[in-house]
Amino acid sequence: MRMYDLIIKKKQGAPLSAEEIRFMIDGYTKGEIPDYQMSAMMMAICFRGMNEEETFELTHAMAESGDMLDLSAIRGIKVDKHSTGGVGDKTSLALTPIVASCGVKIAKMSGRGLGHTGGTIDKLESITGFHTDISTDTFIRNVNEIGIAIMGQTKDLAPADKKLYALRDVTGTVDQMSLIASSIMSKKLAAGADAIVLDVKTGSGAFMKKKEDSFALAREMVAIGKSAGRKMTAVISNMDEPLGRKVGNAMEVEEAIDTLMGKGPEDFTELVETLGAYMLKAGGITPDADEAVKMIREAVSSGKALDKFAEFVKAQGGNEKEVYDPSLLPKSRIVRELKSEEAGYIGKIECEEVGISAMILGGGRKVSTDTIDPSVGIELLKKCGDRVEKGEPYAVIHANDEGKLEECVKRLAASYTFTDRKPEKLPTITGVIE
Amino acid sequence: MRMYDLIIKKKQGAPLSAEEIRFMIDGYTKGEIPDYQMSAMMMAICFRGMNEEETFELTHAMAESGDMLDLSAIRGIKVDKHSTGGVGDKTSLALTPIVASCGVKIAKMSGRGLGHTGGTIDKLESITGFHTDISTDTFIRNVNEIGIAIMGQTKDLAPADKKLYALRDVTGTVDQMSLIASSIMSKKLAAGADAIVLDVKTGSGAFMKKKEDSFALAREMVAIGKSAGRKMTAVISNMDEPLGRKVGNAMEVEEAIDTLMGKGPEDFTELVETLGAYMLKAGGITPDADEAVKMIREAVSSGKALDKFAEFVKAQGGNEKEVYDPSLLPKSRIVRELKSEEAGYIGKIECEEVGISAMILGGGRKVSTDTIDPSVGIELLKKCGDRVEKGEPYAVIHANDEGKLEECVKRLAASYTFTDRKPEKLPTITGVIE
Repeated sequence: MRMYDLIIKKKQGAPLSAEEIRFMIDGYTKGEIPDYQMSAMMMAICFRGMNEEETFELTHAMAESGDMLDLSAIRGIKVDKHSTGGVGDKTSLALTPIVASCGVKIAKMSGRGLGHTGGTIDKLESITGFHTDISTDTFIRNVNEIGIAIMGQTKDLAPADKKLYALRDVTGTVDQMSLIASSIMSKKLAAGADAIVLDVKTGSGAFMKKKEDSFALAREMVAIGKSAGRKMTAVISNMDEPLGRKVGNAMEVEEAIDTLMGKGPEDFTELVETLGAYMLKAGGITPDADEAVKMIREAVSSGKALDKFAEFVKAQGGNEKEVYDPSLLPKSRIVRELKSEEAGYIGKIECEEVGISAMILGGGRKVSTDTIDPSVGIELLKKCGDRVEKGEPYAVIHANDEGKLEECVKRLAASYTFTDRKPEKLPTITGVIE
Repeated sequence: MRMYDLIIKKKQGAPLSAEEIRFMIDGYTKGEIPDYQMSAMMMAICFRGMNEEETFELTHAMAESGDMLDLSAIRGIKVDKHSTGGVGDKTSLALTPIVASCGVKIAKMSGRGLGHTGGTIDKLESITGFHTDISTDTFIRNVNEIGIAIMGQTKDLAPADKKLYALRDVTGTVDQMSLIASSIMSKKLAAGADAIVLDVKTGSGAFMKKKEDSFALAREMVAIGKSAGRKMTAVISNMDEPLGRKVGNAMEVEEAIDTLMGKGPEDFTELVETLGAYMLKAGGITPDADEAVKMIREAVSSGKALDKFAEFVKAQGGNEKEVYDPSLLPKSRIVRELKSEEAGYIGKIECEEVGISAMILGGGRKVSTDTIDPSVGIELLKKCGDRVEKGEPYAVIHANDEGKLEECVKRLAASYTFTDRKPEKLPTITGVIE
């Protein structure tokens, strides 16, 4: 078998066999197939696509290219959750302690942020002492004992995907549906959970800008997971404006804690309850959606969920006092309000621009070696559909550097569009695929 | 400017600007743009194509990536000739001395063979002592003094094309019309001739199997040459069966000499006369095609053309006696006839298979480091449309190795198709583009 022939085959539009895909992924992981052949193949796939069988095989081949996490030592149904990423997406922070407090086992691998989106681990590290650098043994013990643990992706989790994604990232071959689905799902399959609930973002701040693309991606991922015998659910949720009101690491932790205290923003609370209900279903806690939401609200109102978060933070070295008193979290030196120059409504917020604005402040990474300032960020006082009077503040910037602040002010102001007529509020949940 | 953005642009179907193409070719030649980005770009071009402006710019950028040969020291109009390559294509060997003897200045760079097609230099080296390893000064002096010189491509002729072609060759991105046209023409433009006559082959043994593709390629190359101010002609000629009757290095020299003596095969003679007439026109010798053909026939019948060939061979270190007595050329040890098992007509000859059969005997290179046996080859006693009786020989194999001979016998026999009904003779010339 020669990679050259496989490139020609795909270029001509013929599907690759399971054997051919294995040959390609094994050879590439071992370094026997060079980058320049693989990038030509990826570009051919961008034009020709892959059918369901090809996508399944690619996902499995990449999942099996490294360690397959064995979670069998954890009692009960292990439920994983994954978001395709967006701006202000602190969902895991509030969601996982809630469902864990309801009895679902959460054994989760998370990543760091890059570009306009943040990462769960970066956010959690705003809490003094918190770290995800734990052994697999500690990870499994923590899940068994307190019901929740989060670790960074091990180096050997789907190494084929890691190598292939890095290549796609620099060769303009990222935005192909089946490649995206297989990349995400290869890591999820290798991470070993029994059930996976996906949060697929849609809108200007999401990877998938169009609703139909988000649904298609969700369907592909659900199908891949089912092909591997996993219980799958995908929720398609709005990313046409940032999620919640806060963007920035410590600020997002704060908003997650607010939500665990029952005083979170409306859209974020709705998303957490929706995803949580599917996780309780997948975890075998209750088959009834209404019952699940009731349990989630009860976990929040009773303080059980917040206690679970504190317990989890403490188990991974963090200062639990900051959980009960978020004012102890890192704070920025400079606070600047953006005030409206006219009366009207917020018509649109360029979501990606808000993410980049937060990155510019130091809250995100332009390149993977950048360090993060946990204290900086943006608070959106007004969101799409909200009324704003002349001179009324609509956003607050938290910064530590005057120069970066000025850049952020310009960018953030430009990302808002004001209108005279009240626009529709954006729905938080667009659809569900099971 | 970033290569990444150019890949995305081309992937989305937008044309690249002149500046962008220069950036890409300069960066790639210098090694600043990696192979894996270039191969993704080449694959995107295979799907999206390039418009005329892009193709011109790519050609010029590649031509100017190395030395541009300065032929201004040669008096008169310098005419170059290029063939897209085929089996039994010894055209340059007979054509160039004929037109040089009529007064056209031939300053030609030629290549070596690879795969099923041979190279002009390999063929000429069958003549004892002949070499193309001459300095540019000698090259120019020889053209001025005897009207003809052939040298190997210098290392610094269109190095961007060399590097890019090597990459396309292993990434399944060779067969794109504009890329093929710009690759050929970049070398021709750098080689400095005032006028270029192209022999574009069409058929099963050619790079372009379909007639419409051959015409399209011819049109693209003619347009590129004109954009650079060169006088251009393209002749589209048949390669559905090998050209002439002999395939193999010394055997092809012999057939070229036969043709210079006025006793060459019909199809080959017709092609040489046609190309020659356009070269005489391009060289300003005569504007009239009939007159040109008359001059060519006169050059042959008078012995002037053969003398010019001998003069050229001698000037490049070769033994001119072999020109006047081709029986002195290298001969193989074994001669085997293929005899027909039935009476009928030759319906089809798989042209590429004949080329590969000759390569297997040792007459061609599988990989570029293979050495060539000049004496081996194949003589086609019968060609498409010819009558053959039962037991009558239709081909002769000249070999030096029993094992290779047996492999060749099988392959060559399988490449012939016999029919009961007399098929049409294939036309030699399919069209001309000026």
